Formats: sequence, C-alpha cells, structure tokens
Amino acid sequence: MVLTGQNGAKQKMRNESITLAHGSGGAESASLLESVFIKHFNNEVLDRLEDSAVVSGLAVSTDSFVVTPLFFPGGDIGKLAVYGTVNDVLMSGAAPRFLTCGFIVEAGLSIEKLDSISASMAAAASEAGVMIVAGDTKVIEGRDENGGLLINTTGIGILDTDKNAVLPSGMRPGDAILVSGNLGDHHAAILSARMGIKNSIKSDCALLTSIVRALDDEGIVIRAMRDITRGGLGTVLNELAKASGVSVQIDEKRIPVDPEVRAFTGIMGLDPIYMGNEGKMVLAVAPEDAERALACVRNTEIGCGAALIGYVSNTAGAPALVTMRTRLGGTVRVDLLYGEGLPRIC
Amino acid sequence: MVLTGQNGAKQKMRNESITLAHGSGGAESASLLESVFIKHFNNEVLDRLEDSAVVSGLAVSTDSFVVTPLFFPGGDIGKLAVYGTVNDVLMSGAAPRFLTCGFIVEAGLSIEKLDSISASMAAAASEAGVMIVAGDTKVIEGRDENGGLLINTTGIGILDTDKNAVLPSGMRPGDAILVSGNLGDHHAAILSARMGIKNSIKSDCALLTSIVRALDDEGIVIRAMRDITRGGLGTVLNELAKASGVSVQIDEKRIPVDPEVRAFTGIMGLDPIYMGNEGKMVLAVAPEDAERALACVRNTEIGCGAALIGYVSNTAGAPALVTMRTRLGGTVRVDLLYGEGLPRIC
Repeated sequence: MVLTGQNGAKQKMRNESITLAHGSGGAESASLLESVFIKHFNNEVLDRLEDSAVVSGLAVSTDSFVVTPLFFPGGDIGKLAVYGTVNDVLMSGAAPRFLTCGFIVEAGLSIEKLDSISASMAAAASEAGVMIVAGDTKVIEGRDENGGLLINTTGIGILDTDKNAVLPSGMRPGDAILVSGNLGDHHAAILSARMGIKNSIKSDCALLTSIVRALDDEGIVIRAMRDITRGGLGTVLNELAKASGVSVQIDEKRIPVDPEVRAFTGIMGLDPIYMGNEGKMVLAVAPEDAERALACVRNTEIGCGAALIGYVSNTAGAPALVTMRTRLGGTVRVDLLYGEGLPRIC
Repeated sequence: MVLTGQNGAKQKMRNESITLAHGSGGAESASLLESVFIKHFNNEVLDRLEDSAVVSGLAVSTDSFVVTPLFFPGGDIGKLAVYGTVNDVLMSGAAPRFLTCGFIVEAGLSIEKLDSISASMAAAASEAGVMIVAGDTKVIEGRDENGGLLINTTGIGILDTDKNAVLPSGMRPGDAILVSGNLGDHHAAILSARMGIKNSIKSDCALLTSIVRALDDEGIVIRAMRDITRGGLGTVLNELAKASGVSVQIDEKRIPVDPEVRAFTGIMGLDPIYMGNEGKMVLAVAPEDAERALACVRNTEIGCGAALIGYVSNTAGAPALVTMRTRLGGTVRVDLLYGEGLPRIC
C-alpha cells in the first residue's frame, strides 16, 4: 500500500501489516506516526510531536502500558502506568495534577492481581500528587486462562502562568547533555523476568519529580528534557536533535550502565543506548550551568548516578545528527532504533 | 478471595477471576468497581461515579473501545471512540475541547484498516469540534493473523464559568424522563455483523452535541442526563435514581424501538432496555418543561425519534427503584443488567 506522508512524499510502507517493530518507539514507529496518524490528525499541537501536549495552559499526555509480566522486580504494570504518564507531563515543565485510568482486562485475570495492581497505582498516584479523576474498565476475551491487563493512563498538568513550557526544540549549540543515571535497567529486568533468568537486576521505575524540582529550586533553566523510555537514549536524542535543528555528540565511556546490566547486555547482544528505561531522563542545560546541574541531579536519590555525556553543536544547515565517540576512540552515528527492540516492555 | 468494599462490608466476589460479565456495564461491573477500584482510588471526584469527572472547571472522561468487528453498519471503532468520549464529556454540561488517543494494535492488522480508522477519527473529531492533542501507539502480539485494535480516548471539556455541571444527582420528584430515540440499534447491528446476519439495522453511533445545544438554546434546564451505552437504559436509570435518591417509573409501551430491531430482539431473546447504544441519551427535566423539551429534541436530526417515557417520584426513605409498567398493564422492577450483555460491543 502506498501512503502519503505529511510532506507529500509517497511512502511505501515496507510491510502492509502492523508488526511488533511498529511499537518499538524507533524508526518504524516514527514511520507509522508520519504516514498514518500525523497525516490524519495533524494540528499545531500534535505536529510538535512532544510526549506531552501543551495547550491552553494544560499539559496533556496519554500512554498505554502493555508490559508482560504484570509484576516484575522493581515494580508492576500499575506503578509503571502512573509514573510513566506523570513523567511525560512533568517533562513539559508543567505540574502533574490529574490522571485518568482505562483498564482493558483480559478475562481470566485473577481479581487478587487486579486488586494488587490497583493498590500499587493508588500509592503511586499519591506519591506523585495526582488525583485519579476518571476511570473505565473493559473486559475482552483472554489469550490464555490466566488473562492479562492493558492500562491506558492520561495525565493532565497545569503550567504555571509565569513559566514557559519546556519544548524539545529548546536545545542550543554548546548545551551540555546529562542523563540522570544508569541506562537499561528496566529493559534488562523485564527480559530477565520473561526468560526466567535469576539475577539482581531491578526495573528503575521511578518518578522524575524530585530531579525536576531540584533543578527548579536551584534556578537552573532546562533547555530540553525527555524521559528515556521506549526506543532508548539513542532514539530520544535523535528526536530532540531533530526538533531543535542541532547535532549532538555523546561519549560512550561516559554513559552510565550498571555492571550487572552491562554483563547481561553483552550476553544478550543488546545495546544500552537503545534499551527502555522507566525512571531516567536526559536533559540539556546551558554550558555554564552544566556542573551545577549535574551536582543538583546527583544530589537526588534517583539521580545519584547522573552523568554529563555530551554536548550540542550546530548543524550549520546539515541534517541533525547524533554521533558517539566510542570506547575505542572512533566516531559512529547513533540512529533511531530500528526493528523490534523488545515488545510489551512498557 | 474476600475484598473489603468502601462501606467496610466484606464482600465475597462470586468469582475469583475476571469474567466477561465484569465488563458488561451492569451489576458485575458495579461490584468490581466498588470492591477494587473505588476501594483504592476513592476521592471526592471519583466517588461521584459520573461518566465524566468535573474538577477545577475541567470535565474529564476516559473510555476504552474494544468493539469487534472494527467496521460495522453505521460506523467503525474510530468514530465510536471519538463520539463516545465526546458524548461523555458533553453529558457533564461542559464543552468538549481536547481529545487524546491511545492505540493498542494487535500485530497483523492491515495498515490500510488503521489508515481508514484514523481518517474516520479525524473526521469525527472535526465534526465534534475537538482537537486531538496527544496520542500513543503500542503493538502487542495478535490473537490471530488479522490482528485487532483497541482504542482509548480521553476527553477534556471546559465548563463555562457561569454554568453548573449537570450531575447524575440532579433528578427531582416529578421530573419527566425522556429518551432521544430508538433503543438497541448499535447492539443489534454489532451482533448481526458478528453473526453474519443480513438485515438493514445500523449502529446509531452519533454525537449528542446537537441535542444538548438545542435544549440550551431553548433555555431548558437539564436536571440530569446520561448517554445510554453499555448496560442500556435499565442500568443507566438505576445509576441516576441511586445518585439522586429518587425512584423512576417508566412505561414499556412508550420506549421507542425500531420495528426491525424489535423483531431481531424477539428472535434473539434480547431486551432493548439492556442493549447498548452509541448515539442515544436519557434526560430528566422539570415537569413544566417536558413538552417543550420533547419538541426541542425531536426537532434535531438525531433526536427525531425522542419520547417521554416516564417520571421521577420520591422514594420517601425507601430504596431508589426503577419500575416499569409493562405492555400487559403489570408493574415490574427494572434492575441493573446482570450477566454478560454482549462482550466487545463498545
């Protein structure tokens, strides 16, 4: 089938049916977004392709959570569904206030599990300071006798009238790029749980509120920020670079990865920069704020492993690229994630 | 398993696992809501159990759509997902403004179908005057090679500062009860499509905006209103009666049902008052406004089949009951829907 993208170019979708790769958060997701959703739904808000839309002083974000298994080391689907959407709202610079929950339950799920997941969501919402204002439950036929659960959460935040929204287009040449801690923990934890591998890797599933507040209290202006979920750091940096019209250089040896996760990725052939996280963010700050911002993030509990991993440079009319200086001293291009990544991890 | 309801009473769930009946919108749904979700998520907004929460001048509603087949006479899942949530926001008395869409795609779905459904959603959003401000796509393993689609929409409306929200608790003794047209069309259309039965029944899938606007223009105060979806008129009236602390009497012979749908329900053993609709509403108005309101609703295209079906009376301390005078002249109690209704119809 030939679909017409927003730019008018005819694009031949490589595959006529949806594949798991279209849900990876990487290149295929971007292609589907462009050739189907943006084509039909384009408006000045959606076209900015932010994780959270800012309109009429409200920041709005929606996310569906389809992770299996439902319970994993470090969290469960309920905690993830609250934290994930709250984090997305937070990344716009707004204060998360309200949350809606849409449950699609596969028949066969034990009510005890649903009860436990709901308790976990309530605790997470309370921690995040958001009120769950609306909910909906649908039941569909189960895939197997144990049932399953899919959760959509939509978050609404309020932007202070004296504040500007933080946009992905805010990065400027010279800005320092920071990540808030070890990459790949969530992805490795889910994969381990699914494969029955015993190790001590836990999901990093966390609210990013403390980091954003600490930077705000310190008076540091965040030029751009994004939580690093599906598609990983590589995909997120490409999106920010493209939105800002700049290039980004990062240094592989500065990217923090837990040694056990590093060993796990080595065995599994995974790359931490494309792995999903659920409690990590990347941010850009002015070069003169870099050291102070890093100290500030490191001073929070969830940001204690933060690192300055690179800088922004001008593209001077050339395409916005993300490049990485490797451990061996070479320079490689970091593209969007291609292919499946890992289905049903977030 | 024993779960503790909000009122502190120990409730034994009849079944330890989720069944399709828990998604019917009837008694089992209410029981699950009470024993799990309300228990954990209770707050002053959610406890009102409205289809749309009104908080800080915003009306917020969330709904997941799991209908199969995805395309049916009179509409498709996309149109339904937009209309359904916009209608819920509308029922609070607010003006629907923003919509978010969360797609959960089962791998194998043709991109052409997704494209067509997205086009349908865009047209519906445009018709409803709402802006789609945020979206999300996840892909999960398909149940079969053709894939499938589940859509969550969350709607945000703005309540005029000079208006009060329309609450389910607003019915008063003496109020007239109106329905906006024939009941059961959507339910019968979906069931026919699923069973491969050829007839001319179409889903009533429609926006209720024109009815609400017409009543507002006429200066008629709506005491309570609700769109009649899952669980049907019987369930909705019970919810409104309970919220308002009143009883409701309806007259079976005044309930409008299309003759072809009537014949279909006769053969299938279905009761139109428990069947789901996607473009019908029930409303209560003061007795002196009844005739004017009826004329006003009938004057709209989608409300041309409206009827006055009953009245509200005082419970005088007794439980809030819905009763119906039957065609044969007897009086029966109309309870919530019990059992499955029809899975995956909305």
